[in-house]
Amino acid sequence: MLKILVIHGPNLLLLGKRETHIYGDMTLDDINRDLLKKADELGCSLDIIQRDDEGSIVSLIGVAQADGLLINPAAYTHTSVAIADAILSMAKPAVEVHLSNIYKRESWRHHSYVAPVVTGQISGLGADGYILGLEFLIKTLSSQERPT
Amino acid sequence: MLKILVIHGPNLLLLGKRETHIYGDMTLDDINRDLLKKADELGCSLDIIQRDDEGSIVSLIGVAQADGLLINPAAYTHTSVAIADAILSMAKPAVEVHLSNIYKRESWRHHSYVAPVVTGQISGLGADGYILGLEFLIKTLSSQERPT
Amino acid sequence: MLKILVIHGPNLLLLGKRETHIYGDMTLDDINRDLLKKADELGCSLDIIQRDDEGSIVSLIGVAQADGLLINPAAYTHTSVAIADAILSMAKPAVEVHLSNIYKRESWRHHSYVAPVVTGQISGLGADGYILGLEFLIKTLSSQERPT
Amino acid sequence: MLKILVIHGPNLLLLGKRETHIYGDMTLDDINRDLLKKADELGCSLDIIQRDDEGSIVSLIGVAQADGLLINPAAYTHTSVAIADAILSMAKPAVEVHLSNIYKRESWRHHSYVAPVVTGQISGLGADGYILGLEFLIKTLSSQERPT
Amino acid sequence: MLKILVIHGPNLLLLGKRETHIYGDMTLDDINRDLLKKADELGCSLDIIQRDDEGSIVSLIGVAQADGLLINPAAYTHTSVAIADAILSMAKPAVEVHLSNIYKRESWRHHSYVAPVVTGQISGLGADGYILGLEFLIKTLSSQERPT
Amino acid sequence: MLKILVIHGPNLLLLGKRETHIYGDMTLDDINRDLLKKADELGCSLDIIQRDDEGSIVSLIGVAQADGLLINPAAYTHTSVAIADAILSMAKPAVEVHLSNIYKRESWRHHSYVAPVVTGQISGLGADGYILGLEFLIKTLSSQERPT
Amino acid sequence: MLKILVIHGPNLLLLGKRETHIYGDMTLDDINRDLLKKADELGCSLDIIQRDDEGSIVSLIGVAQADGLLINPAAYTHTSVAIADAILSMAKPAVEVHLSNIYKRESWRHHSYVAPVVTGQISGLGADGYILGLEFLIKTLSSQERPT
Amino acid sequence: MLKILVIHGPNLLLLGKRETHIYGDMTLDDINRDLLKKADELGCSLDIIQRDDEGSIVSLIGVAQADGLLINPAAYTHTSVAIADAILSMAKPAVEVHLSNIYKRESWRHHSYVAPVVTGQISGLGADGYILGLEFLIKTLSSQERPT
Amino acid sequence: MLKILVIHGPNLLLLGKRETHIYGDMTLDDINRDLLKKADELGCSLDIIQRDDEGSIVSLIGVAQADGLLINPAAYTHTSVAIADAILSMAKPAVEVHLSNIYKRESWRHHSYVAPVVTGQISGLGADGYILGLEFLIKTLSSQERPT
Amino acid sequence: MLKILVIHGPNLLLLGKRETHIYGDMTLDDINRDLLKKADELGCSLDIIQRDDEGSIVSLIGVAQADGLLINPAAYTHTSVAIADAILSMAKPAVEVHLSNIYKRESWRHHSYVAPVVTGQISGLGADGYILGLEFLIKTLSSQERPT
Amino acid sequence: MLKILVIHGPNLLLLGKRETHIYGDMTLDDINRDLLKKADELGCSLDIIQRDDEGSIVSLIGVAQADGLLINPAAYTHTSVAIADAILSMAKPAVEVHLSNIYKRESWRHHSYVAPVVTGQISGLGADGYILGLEFLIKTLSSQERPT
Amino acid sequence: MLKILVIHGPNLLLLGKRETHIYGDMTLDDINRDLLKKADELGCSLDIIQRDDEGSIVSLIGVAQADGLLINPAAYTHTSVAIADAILSMAKPAVEVHLSNIYKRESWRHHSYVAPVVTGQISGLGADGYILGLEFLIKTLSSQERPT
Repeated sequence: MLKILVIHGPNLLLLGKRETHIYGDMTLDDINRDLLKKADELGCSLDIIQRDDEGSIVSLIGVAQADGLLINPAAYTHTSVAIADAILSMAKPAVEVHLSNIYKRESWRHHSYVAPVVTGQISGLGADGYILGLEFLIKTLSSQERPT
Repeated sequence: MLKILVIHGPNLLLLGKRETHIYGDMTLDDINRDLLKKADELGCSLDIIQRDDEGSIVSLIGVAQADGLLINPAAYTHTSVAIADAILSMAKPAVEVHLSNIYKRESWRHHSYVAPVVTGQISGLGADGYILGLEFLIKTLSSQERPT
Repeated sequence: MLKILVIHGPNLLLLGKRETHIYGDMTLDDINRDLLKKADELGCSLDIIQRDDEGSIVSLIGVAQADGLLINPAAYTHTSVAIADAILSMAKPAVEVHLSNIYKRESWRHHSYVAPVVTGQISGLGADGYILGLEFLIKTLSSQERPT
Repeated sequence: MLKILVIHGPNLLLLGKRETHIYGDMTLDDINRDLLKKADELGCSLDIIQRDDEGSIVSLIGVAQADGLLINPAAYTHTSVAIADAILSMAKPAVEVHLSNIYKRESWRHHSYVAPVVTGQISGLGADGYILGLEFLIKTLSSQERPT
Repeated sequence: MLKILVIHGPNLLLLGKRETHIYGDMTLDDINRDLLKKADELGCSLDIIQRDDEGSIVSLIGVAQADGLLINPAAYTHTSVAIADAILSMAKPAVEVHLSNIYKRESWRHHSYVAPVVTGQISGLGADGYILGLEFLIKTLSSQERPT
Repeated sequence: MLKILVIHGPNLLLLGKRETHIYGDMTLDDINRDLLKKADELGCSLDIIQRDDEGSIVSLIGVAQADGLLINPAAYTHTSVAIADAILSMAKPAVEVHLSNIYKRESWRHHSYVAPVVTGQISGLGADGYILGLEFLIKTLSSQERPT
Repeated sequence: MLKILVIHGPNLLLLGKRETHIYGDMTLDDINRDLLKKADELGCSLDIIQRDDEGSIVSLIGVAQADGLLINPAAYTHTSVAIADAILSMAKPAVEVHLSNIYKRESWRHHSYVAPVVTGQISGLGADGYILGLEFLIKTLSSQERPT
Repeated sequence: MLKILVIHGPNLLLLGKRETHIYGDMTLDDINRDLLKKADELGCSLDIIQRDDEGSIVSLIGVAQADGLLINPAAYTHTSVAIADAILSMAKPAVEVHLSNIYKRESWRHHSYVAPVVTGQISGLGADGYILGLEFLIKTLSSQERPT
Repeated sequence: MLKILVIHGPNLLLLGKRETHIYGDMTLDDINRDLLKKADELGCSLDIIQRDDEGSIVSLIGVAQADGLLINPAAYTHTSVAIADAILSMAKPAVEVHLSNIYKRESWRHHSYVAPVVTGQISGLGADGYILGLEFLIKTLSSQERPT
Repeated sequence: MLKILVIHGPNLLLLGKRETHIYGDMTLDDINRDLLKKADELGCSLDIIQRDDEGSIVSLIGVAQADGLLINPAAYTHTSVAIADAILSMAKPAVEVHLSNIYKRESWRHHSYVAPVVTGQISGLGADGYILGLEFLIKTLSSQERPT
Repeated sequence: MLKILVIHGPNLLLLGKRETHIYGDMTLDDINRDLLKKADELGCSLDIIQRDDEGSIVSLIGVAQADGLLINPAAYTHTSVAIADAILSMAKPAVEVHLSNIYKRESWRHHSYVAPVVTGQISGLGADGYILGLEFLIKTLSSQERPT
Repeated sequence: MLKILVIHGPNLLLLGKRETHIYGDMTLDDINRDLLKKADELGCSLDIIQRDDEGSIVSLIGVAQADGLLINPAAYTHTSVAIADAILSMAKPAVEVHLSNIYKRESWRHHSYVAPVVTGQISGLGADGYILGLEFLIKTLSSQERPT
């Protein structure tokens, strides 16, 4: 059975709890529940974690035994070389997800250290981005061939 | 019945015909056949076009009566303000697709004029990117609510 | 009788048809009607065209037999060296017009390839910009002397 | 009766007096006479001033009771945040005029602090730029609606 | 009773312990004692923490129940998007404090990711900066109106 | 008795008179009245001036006999090397005040020529910034030692 | 028999027709006649086209059955990623020609998107550049080895 | 007896465990064993730690009682101002080590926040870099004089 | 008899009065006395002025009837396009003088708007720079030929 | 009889001697032999030199009595203003040759100080570039007219 | 027996002779004596040269028959592409040495053309840097394997 | 008796010999004759050299026994760190001379590596610049005090 590591980066625990007038009522738990349901359908298992600190994310990727990575690095997208190095060393199919379209926001959010080391990136499709990324990973891993 | 406009930008007609040792045997016809099959499943119709010239793409978006846009602007991603302006004026859910991960290529391919005017972007997931983008568009249009 | 070539660039056909809550109800036909009326008053003739593609605009300027040029290059303002080269080779009085004040918009809209090769630029005065530009061209051509 | 404040920036007093082999014989008085004649035709009044110092221009805009502003900020175009702030606070239709096409000159003359805070800009149409700018202001103020 | 969260960033524990010939003998405990005394006078309570790691600071702001934030992000001022995002989500009056004048130091210390998301910044006023920032927060919160 | 020179830069005379829907009703006179009241409490005297022109501000600092400087350079913050040089030559404790948080505004407002030559800067705390700056100056001057 | 595709970019139709006081009397027809004569000598055939629009050039390269490419991209040199992508996919020996020395002109003409995807570039040798480029292509193709 | 603090930054725990086809079989344990053997020869003691998180590294340097520092900051080399500040406050001889030649890699790896605050840097000499750095530290500390 | 206009820019009145431990005891009066003595020797007359405001300097150059200009623009060197424009319109031999070597100071003092419009610049030769500049102007004007 | 100066820059002596697996077996002697043979055909004489030091190249151009220059400046292309100045002063037809396509290599090799001062540049056509350059020079000199 | 080429760049002959109050009394002869002694211990031979001119250094590397290179390029570190090209063609283990920590000096000294073409760099360890570099070269050459 | 080292950089031997229609008939010998005559008047001796290569200039400054330096580094002004380092180590009064105003020429000629290490710079005063620089050096050395 395939196993996917799902990582939510800093501040994502606040989803649906703060600034709900802007981001809506969907919480991280809601996203995770949808992911687990989809995993069930696809016949794979998930390891889901949320961390606010860069070092823990680096360590978790470092010890991970997963077949693929689904990661929303949030603010660390733009500042963490360490997480990018960890993903590179993991050497597995990986998809970077952003809830919002980062290319519509401040210009320094347009650059991602993570993008060059993942298989692909989904940006701006909301919580659906996670589901679509998971579908891609399972399809890719099942067929044993990855796009270049 | 929902209708999606699918646009393939310059040089994409060559997929699977030239440099097959690099890009593989999949042709644009193959991608379109998969898209049409998925559209059938989702109960929507597609208008699919490929154009090498910027002006035609601008005109086609300008007269389009579609409910959503699925576009791979290829080289025009990085040089066309006119296509971005056309998408903006269309004011419909839109997904930008790239076969390859543009963030792994030359630095001037990292910038997209189109990204800030679409709903979201999928990069590096190969031909699957089109299918996932179409799924997102139909789901979004069906539920009558778009992520911000 | 003096003849002025009037060129409207990409997407301008959509004026007054799309996003009317933003840009108002005035269509390109309305602007052209006002221009023709003013041309009547000034005793000159106009050749008016709208094109979405860069190449046609280049070709049209290339074969033009006009005494002056009134051009709104729209999105090509910021990306077309070819149109600028064509205007330069035409070697006639020319006025660049922008409906909106391009200096109030995204920073990459502040740069114009066309500005250094025209006689002058009018930006942000709405449809009046065309009328004022036409007045200037006729006055300049009539007096046979151009400002430097 | 509408009143327009006309401001000529630093060094403009020298027009027609120095370097006449380059700039011609037209003096600032000539420009002002033409402006006053046009104002008569349009039925408006003008307050015309020339100042070499930035502070005076800021103060004069600060106390102005005019309905619109016609300004050639000359060298201060490129260096004065203070004049731009004053125009912003005035909150009236305003046109920025340049005798020469500033986009044909040194690259640091291409940037204007004033451009983003005025209604529009006319550049390179010589002394006619003032007349055209005045026509636009009166037309706009008369119709009680300004382009955005 | 109003509650203010006070955060001291990385390396600040070393104040008054290392390099005393440069920074003097005042320790972080001294600063905190002065802050608590001032809080007593102002009738508010303080939660004071010092952390060397970015993730803890993000988490603490994420769970904070405080009415305002007084933060010296130290080195993270210049590198942490995550802390800035956390402060933004907190949506409370916040003051950024720097003991030294960061504009007199290396040029990369002149940029702050935090500055655009706080109410204001006090830089270069030494330990007094904390006291003045606390006074401002309480005054602002008491009057129920914040400057924009 | 200590004497502080208070300088308000260009356009500040308009506070509370123009754009009151944005900046509120507080005038410069109101700010000065509060400063004088606080000066009374602290037992110091103030010389308060407002000037729209850079040269006057330079001259006034040049002849000043004050013990400290409280200055809001407004627009000159970003363009005046001359004022910065004058402050440097004065060689007294000085605080730079900005009503708004300049780091939340246009990027060119993030740079201050004045910041490197003053003791410290307070930005974004509204009219309170003046009061807090005055308190700091008197405290510093009374104790005869300035922070570095 | 070897076949070479010769492409002349935008505005080149005007050679010898406009601005003859600057560019001389040599027309594109003259250049083509010389090329055909040289081709005769070398025993190869030529397909010669001139196009003002980017899309046609992309399409023509896309369907070309030639053994080599001789291209003067003119203004598209500096703005077209699409033409560069087409040349790359063609995967044949290619020479980029410029009539004038582009390094003596405006700085933005110094950058070529095409240069990194062709075998080599000849700049500033006038119409001779075409002849020399053709000689190189035939020599290279005849010897079946290309320089790297 | 002299004591040296040895710090290995993020991801270094993976040496010899992942991507062994690229980095070889040497593990961090192997490097540490060689360092301890060399320390024995030199008659000094070592405190060796590996951490994936920036905050821990800052804290450990903050409380360190060592006579010198040997540090491979790995990814934090390029992003951590906090570690650089901690090293500065430690005020001891320090050597920065990189296994690979960072100047042969991506351009953003060429910049080090740590380099300006250490005594010197050794880059690209593989695991030998640690041994050479340790020799330098002991020699310097023994002779009680450091190069400037 | 030749007449030279000598202009001292902002803050120069403070020479020898403030910061004498740095700049020494020489006042602007001392410099002027030496200049007048040298003028006597050379048989020319001088108009010497000092101004703190940019506008006055612009106006004075504008009305000047002098044969040459000797100017120390001080801080305006780096910020005034208006003074540069005035010098350009004067069209006389001109020498820019700086007491200190501006290339040894902050990097933004390395750029001069004035340098491209004067005959030459003398920097870092102290008060002697004025004397040498005056000698050059008189020699140049006497021989009726200026170096290019 | 026409005489051409041929200069080979630094490291070119190593052609065909080092790294032959990359650059092939062709030596500088081989290139020179081909050049001399072609010169014979064209009826001109050659002065051929190779130098590793910038100063010698400058001096040789300085004293040259040749009618034209064929130069491969190698590494000095990117760093030598002195060689560019020497070529400019020589004022003869000149062709810059590069064996490899410099636009396919590191970005700092894309800039040439020499390009703006020569008649034209041939890049990436291998040793044929020298022969083609020589043909152009003789043709140009024979016809007594140079392209601009 | 292994042979190492040791190159000292421009101005290094002055070590210990000029500015001894800054750089101390150690001369280049002293450094060379220590190097030769260490070479004796390691059983290798050295060719040591000092040159002030770039061309000689290029030539010497070009003809070198050494097994490794130890080079302090001094000022040429920052300006010489030619020396970097020579080292690249030599294709032997090479170590770049700097006496001072170049990252503590002017920003333009932070960039090295040589760094990307050598095995590694040692900076800031004084004369010990040469000894440590020599040890590394001999160890690497002896074991016949170089780190990547 | 004071001795001044006079250095003329690359290409200066060509003065008055090439391009005399631009630079006039004055040769380097003429300049040297004037310098020697002035030296006679001032009672000092001169060592005058001209070199085209950077290394010789470095070596000559390295061994110089002069009391001051008068140098026109010509093209090396903009590219030589080595010459700047040599001047710094010489630690004598030095004047940098440029015949033309380098600030009126290409932008990359505005930067001088030499300027920050000399006492002062004279630019654009033609051959007079040498004479004025010599006068300054003798005056400075005679009075035994150098300006800072």
